[in-house]
Amino acid sequence: MKQPFSRRDFLNLIGAAGGSAAVYQSSIALGLIPAAGALSLTRLEPLHKTPRRVLILGAGISGLVCAYELERAGYECVVLEASHRIGGRNMTVRHGDTIDELGHAQTCHFDRHPNLYFNAGPARIPAHHKLLVHYCKTFQIPLEVFVNEDRNAWVQDSNAFGGKPVRIREYITDARGFIAEMLSKAVNRDEFDAPFSDLDKEKLLEFLHAFGDLNENNLYRGSIRAGYKTGGMVAHGTLKGTLDFSEILKSDFWRFRMHWAEQEDQAAPLMQAVGGMDNIVKGFTDRIRSPIITSAQVRGVTLQNNQVQVIYQHKGKLHSLNGDYCLNSIPKHLLTGIPNNFPNDYIEALGAVPRGKLFKIAFQMKQRFWEDDAIYGGISWTNQPIEQIWYPSHGIHSTKGIMLGAYTFDKKHGEYFERLTPAQRLEEAIRQAEHIHPDYRGYIESGVSVPWGRMNHLMGCNALWTDELRARYFNRLQQPEGRHYLIGDQVSYHAGWEEGAMSSAHFALADLNQRVQAELRGDAIP
Amino acid sequence: MKQPFSRRDFLNLIGAAGGSAAVYQSSIALGLIPAAGALSLTRLEPLHKTPRRVLILGAGISGLVCAYELERAGYECVVLEASHRIGGRNMTVRHGDTIDELGHAQTCHFDRHPNLYFNAGPARIPAHHKLLVHYCKTFQIPLEVFVNEDRNAWVQDSNAFGGKPVRIREYITDARGFIAEMLSKAVNRDEFDAPFSDLDKEKLLEFLHAFGDLNENNLYRGSIRAGYKTGGMVAHGTLKGTLDFSEILKSDFWRFRMHWAEQEDQAAPLMQAVGGMDNIVKGFTDRIRSPIITSAQVRGVTLQNNQVQVIYQHKGKLHSLNGDYCLNSIPKHLLTGIPNNFPNDYIEALGAVPRGKLFKIAFQMKQRFWEDDAIYGGISWTNQPIEQIWYPSHGIHSTKGIMLGAYTFDKKHGEYFERLTPAQRLEEAIRQAEHIHPDYRGYIESGVSVPWGRMNHLMGCNALWTDELRARYFNRLQQPEGRHYLIGDQVSYHAGWEEGAMSSAHFALADLNQRVQAELRGDAIP
Repeated sequence: MKQPFSRRDFLNLIGAAGGSAAVYQSSIALGLIPAAGALSLTRLEPLHKTPRRVLILGAGISGLVCAYELERAGYECVVLEASHRIGGRNMTVRHGDTIDELGHAQTCHFDRHPNLYFNAGPARIPAHHKLLVHYCKTFQIPLEVFVNEDRNAWVQDSNAFGGKPVRIREYITDARGFIAEMLSKAVNRDEFDAPFSDLDKEKLLEFLHAFGDLNENNLYRGSIRAGYKTGGMVAHGTLKGTLDFSEILKSDFWRFRMHWAEQEDQAAPLMQAVGGMDNIVKGFTDRIRSPIITSAQVRGVTLQNNQVQVIYQHKGKLHSLNGDYCLNSIPKHLLTGIPNNFPNDYIEALGAVPRGKLFKIAFQMKQRFWEDDAIYGGISWTNQPIEQIWYPSHGIHSTKGIMLGAYTFDKKHGEYFERLTPAQRLEEAIRQAEHIHPDYRGYIESGVSVPWGRMNHLMGCNALWTDELRARYFNRLQQPEGRHYLIGDQVSYHAGWEEGAMSSAHFALADLNQRVQAELRGDAIP
Repeated sequence: MKQPFSRRDFLNLIGAAGGSAAVYQSSIALGLIPAAGALSLTRLEPLHKTPRRVLILGAGISGLVCAYELERAGYECVVLEASHRIGGRNMTVRHGDTIDELGHAQTCHFDRHPNLYFNAGPARIPAHHKLLVHYCKTFQIPLEVFVNEDRNAWVQDSNAFGGKPVRIREYITDARGFIAEMLSKAVNRDEFDAPFSDLDKEKLLEFLHAFGDLNENNLYRGSIRAGYKTGGMVAHGTLKGTLDFSEILKSDFWRFRMHWAEQEDQAAPLMQAVGGMDNIVKGFTDRIRSPIITSAQVRGVTLQNNQVQVIYQHKGKLHSLNGDYCLNSIPKHLLTGIPNNFPNDYIEALGAVPRGKLFKIAFQMKQRFWEDDAIYGGISWTNQPIEQIWYPSHGIHSTKGIMLGAYTFDKKHGEYFERLTPAQRLEEAIRQAEHIHPDYRGYIESGVSVPWGRMNHLMGCNALWTDELRARYFNRLQQPEGRHYLIGDQVSYHAGWEEGAMSSAHFALADLNQRVQAELRGDAIP
């Protein structure tokens, strides 16, 4: 067999100077890679008779995408997964499931019922996450609407409103009202420079009147948007008093959470997989015919001449596999601890980015008490360590429900809960939630906690890229090292999202496809 | 049988001076009537052995609530409904259904499929509509989340942005950004009087920074909230350019529609009945054992001594019924045309309030093309007569879908469509929608239109109360005239909502209950 056309030769051929980034640019031009707003799948050219074996490390979303796409193009794939389960952080916890936390294995004691599950990892499908939506559609995974913002839910902050919970509906309505009133006053004083001074003043005042629901004097004195205090159905509705704007400013809610559902990835419409987000994993595993070996821990990755060798342990024995390429989604901070022959700068990049410590608690509630409070899905926010309480978007008016009792973004809150035993975590979450729902404890039947920073084979959640880290390391990690590609949300601009994982997988597949095609054309050259 | 204790006697007994309003106030004190925020059902005291017959005119939501509650308390009820169908404006149109418009009967040619229906009347269940939610829960009517706001949907205004559609996501993000920038500038100039001058200036600037997603100089220069122009997954995301704020001001969207989902009744969470809103009607009719006579047109209402006589036509013959009470939901502007012996001031009040002319068109689309545009539910808005395009919240990723092709609030738009034939209406709606979805026409398989102003037995939609009309006539109509009660959303502060209809029904039931109980106690007085 002739020596295949080298990667460098190929890049020279197409006139590109700088490695795979240039290939990626040319792929965009060909419409192979998703640009924002439109789905653009990598279409792998079929191999026909020339065999190519790809070793895929990790059966999370990125690894599954690669296996699915590669085997459909005629590649031989082997997927190695360290955990006993497939899916990585896409994990739905149900009756009898084990939560494989380091030192604290938990068993889930929820009732066995289709509604009673807990999405410990991804839980939301933004409509513009085109690859994720594409696979859900292709696999006919039933989706339903996910409620991300519930104006009837609560904001509770120990530094504002005497620590008492306030309806998000009131908080947002009143904040908008006061902003509009303040700006109306400023507009009336003609205090603006360009580019605003040339705006039609009367129209701007009308705009603010509508924006804040101001009164006829352009003052904010409460709004029906906050909900009536009394009446409104068979009697005249009377407005609630307004919140004190200085109390609003004392709370932390406006720094981030008040604008939660304004974000691109958090704004409606959002969806979830009916019955649990791991139906997305199942969509892949139902179709993938390549072996996915679970409880297979990688013990070595060696870049060889035109091959990658992977040593792994399975059922107490070491095995060796060689592949033409390796697509590797092992969390990069763990990968540095596995024997390898990567160059030093690659190892440095792999070890440079810290991981999030996202933490979730879920409780089975014997009664959907929040529905009596007009809450159907969405989030209550607090400045306590639990940070969030989620109400389920599905199973409306059924008897029981699974609530998220904590979802922490702040690393220090994650670490705080990690230090506790599972039982202590639940107790703390209950104590904190009682500031929002005083009768909370009485509804609880069972609970589980998932600290991603302590989950075996992961030991961390999303990669915490900073601008500085990205400038130094991102391209290095996104480019293949020889025939080894790092994949996963960890090497995307959307860490912690399935779309990031899928996009990274397609980025690597596009590059791999071009290299393999170049090799095959190289074979044909005498 | 002894003469029952008169209503006047009863009111004198409890010391009330002014009719049923006082009774209503005492009912609130007893917790019988829903106050804002909490469900408080009228609990009718059971009649035991003393028969009372109640004639209920109209089998819309208010009539059905009355029949359901009264028969459970031992009342004999007869419901007369003029139309061939039960439900009034709660109407779901499916394959084969007739739309009973004056002079333009239409047949619905949608495919026969559970997802392919059109809620021609109420379509949204706000979580705080406690009576409606109560009945849905009691009857175990499956509910699902309804998407009312979709940031991926479009705003299109012929007076702004050159008439081109703009994503709601961009419009709202940019509007917030510019507001925050303007106010930041004003704050930096210290231009405020009390009560704002004492606010912590630095905190207010931080608040505005977060509110508008301003840059480090507190200027708005675009935000990821508007969605990236390119990148964001495997490459750095670049921001979109901002919309011109003066173009934003030129549009009509901010006058009302931009704040649509800020309103109490339109903010998340909202729900819909799985399979069609008329499952709520079915919930009642499955349980009501009293006769509901359809195609029974009332030809006379006569107040008699302690009775109400109703003449109706059914199958070509006139019939007469007497009842101890009459609960009447016939649209009040039609009621004035039915022979009666009401006092003149009551007749004047009945005829005083005009009706809305809400108009809807629905199309069956052979492909859910909007999902390719990342739209899942929600509303696109236009300043053209169709006003709104709705995308279904259910049936995600199935093949076909029913879209609302028009939903007009403006009376002149309703009248415009009413003047056209059904075929012309569809054609006009298509032509207008093409300004938002250029390929719209090609997806259409069939369509129907429902002009509530021309629907037989209704000839109008919601009662259009003004403050002036309410001051003059509302109490007069809410109070019973002898043993005749006007009911329905038409005599509530929530015209056009099922909750208004149900609240009005419960208001009348509470009053009727007190009168009957007084009568029964009067019977026992020698």
